[in-house]
Amino acid sequence: MSSFELIKKSQSARYGKLTTAHGVVETPVFMPVGTKATVKAMTVEELEEIGFKIILGNTYHLHLRPGEEVVKKLGGLHKFMNWPKGILTDSGGYQVFSLSKIRKLTEEGVEFQSHYDGSKCFLSPETSMQIQMDLGSDIIMAFDECTPYPASFDEALKSMELSMRWAKRSKLAMIRKESLFFGIVQGGMFEDLRLKSINELKEINPDGFAIGGLSVGEPIELMHEMVNKITPHLPEDKPHYLMGVGTPLDIVVAINAGIDMFDCVIPTRNARNGNAFTSTGIVSIKQAQYTQDSSPLDPNCGCKVCKGYSRAYLRHLYINNEILSSRLMTYHNLYFYNNLIEKCRQAIKADQWTEFFNKFCAASNQSKS
Amino acid sequence: MSSFELIKKSQSARYGKLTTAHGVVETPVFMPVGTKATVKAMTVEELEEIGFKIILGNTYHLHLRPGEEVVKKLGGLHKFMNWPKGILTDSGGYQVFSLSKIRKLTEEGVEFQSHYDGSKCFLSPETSMQIQMDLGSDIIMAFDECTPYPASFDEALKSMELSMRWAKRSKLAMIRKESLFFGIVQGGMFEDLRLKSINELKEINPDGFAIGGLSVGEPIELMHEMVNKITPHLPEDKPHYLMGVGTPLDIVVAINAGIDMFDCVIPTRNARNGNAFTSTGIVSIKQAQYTQDSSPLDPNCGCKVCKGYSRAYLRHLYINNEILSSRLMTYHNLYFYNNLIEKCRQAIKADQWTEFFNKFCAASNQSKS
Repeated sequence: MSSFELIKKSQSARYGKLTTAHGVVETPVFMPVGTKATVKAMTVEELEEIGFKIILGNTYHLHLRPGEEVVKKLGGLHKFMNWPKGILTDSGGYQVFSLSKIRKLTEEGVEFQSHYDGSKCFLSPETSMQIQMDLGSDIIMAFDECTPYPASFDEALKSMELSMRWAKRSKLAMIRKESLFFGIVQGGMFEDLRLKSINELKEINPDGFAIGGLSVGEPIELMHEMVNKITPHLPEDKPHYLMGVGTPLDIVVAINAGIDMFDCVIPTRNARNGNAFTSTGIVSIKQAQYTQDSSPLDPNCGCKVCKGYSRAYLRHLYINNEILSSRLMTYHNLYFYNNLIEKCRQAIKADQWTEFFNKFCAASNQSKS
Repeated sequence: MSSFELIKKSQSARYGKLTTAHGVVETPVFMPVGTKATVKAMTVEELEEIGFKIILGNTYHLHLRPGEEVVKKLGGLHKFMNWPKGILTDSGGYQVFSLSKIRKLTEEGVEFQSHYDGSKCFLSPETSMQIQMDLGSDIIMAFDECTPYPASFDEALKSMELSMRWAKRSKLAMIRKESLFFGIVQGGMFEDLRLKSINELKEINPDGFAIGGLSVGEPIELMHEMVNKITPHLPEDKPHYLMGVGTPLDIVVAINAGIDMFDCVIPTRNARNGNAFTSTGIVSIKQAQYTQDSSPLDPNCGCKVCKGYSRAYLRHLYINNEILSSRLMTYHNLYFYNNLIEKCRQAIKADQWTEFFNKFCAASNQSKS
């Protein structure tokens, strides 16, 4: 039986169900990022209260601290962080290339220095799979090289081909029956390389197809263009995961193209920096205009932060560096994201995607102007 | 009708009920410190879940940020911070003397520099009362000078006499009917000055008697000695509040002497520094011995942190500077404090105080050795 069921399409937007070892996830879905075995500032109870069914964990960080052996000994990542629902782990590839000083990239894998203490580490398809299996991840990502932006055609080709060889090795090494395995499409900003990558991945028949190597510094318009070009070529019967994306607009644009899964630090990181997503755009809570503002962050939001607290109070907390600022702002932003995706799912189920999409884009343009 | 009802005594330990405009508080009671309109790292829901019925707010900090006019305009401190239960505010006196550069101390009041930006401020009995009334505090503290330690007899006398004159002015200025008014006993480490202070306060008949000027740097034994000397002279029909105290042992010793109310930053501050109170002493979670420790902070604790998380996970969060570390550690420590006080209340109600006290002191000695 397949882990993914595509239940409804409305134009290209898709509503489906993904079954993991820790529950069923409705798609489209947004996965909060729990880098170091915690979604920053949140408890697992709050994540469940908001409605999340799956979160993301970072292989790179957990490998370095506390180490997958420790997590495994303590019963796996779910038990370690007390999270009973789904966990997807990335492969560590992206962080090796973005956070570490690379020592040596070979066919075998990549030698790098820990960004914590400079110690020498090594990741390969096999070690990445072993780490993710030790963590007990529900969805294990292939180990890949994230092609930087900009990259020439030849660079992108070479990088993609390495990632495809690594994908095959990853698939062979991922022997944990309870876990799903996702491949990652690479190929830079070149459509034909992306299609080649998809075809190569099809051969190893992963449980899901992720698009990697986007949102790595390219203009937003180019990212949207690439998503629109790549997504139609992904197998319809598998979940489509756009890695590391994005803003509310990015997400709605990608759902419109047929993407099912998202993760991003934007809602949590922005929250800690005092920026709240609202139905009328971003509210930067540090601004003096909110000093005596008794209204909630977003009058159209039903979250407990908007029910209980004024902008004036939230500004006061932020200005004073209070932990409660990060907590309340993060809760609101995650609620906003989950609520947005829930509305997307409803629009698709009701076959009213186009109306929803047009309305959202119009409102988005308005809040910019 | 009196706001305080002494219901039961077991030796000198007292069980009572204090009625405020925001609910009834059983005593002995511990009040978490919510300096800047938030008990650091906690939501109000969590404070209620733990069982707290009253918290403390700091007049000095709230006067400087966001200012009592802002809080008043937004509906008072309860509404501002979304806390429906009791609030006691200190007078600001202690912080003026501990945090600020004092410019000038006169009969009228004290001119000082804000520790935030160096701006010139002035507090007097009348301004302190006005601020606390604007905040909408349930229990308003007299404005006093906190006598430093050490102080000579003459210094302590002079300081106490000033505080007593200020107490009278405070009482006259505190005209808010919904609020209770507490006087503060001063007099340094001199018993006869303390008795003189009590007698002067009796004349203005406050709703409660606080002991100030302890836990200001003197040896713990001296503090305990002073509490044992002062408390028996406080009027039996009024609540007795020992300000800024203390450790679990300090609190139990003070309850034994007849104290009813406590506030202290120890459980919250220690939590953020990685120190947990447990039934077998303090657990410093940063220690390497906990790296793979699957046991909870305190196997004898029923709080949700001890039910859900291992020492290994809590250590991981602390080492990685995760906000969740402060959250979980603070929750546990506040639960520990509230639970300790609840046990004290039960022992008094059951007239088994002496047994409880002796057992607690014996266990306390053991965990030290």
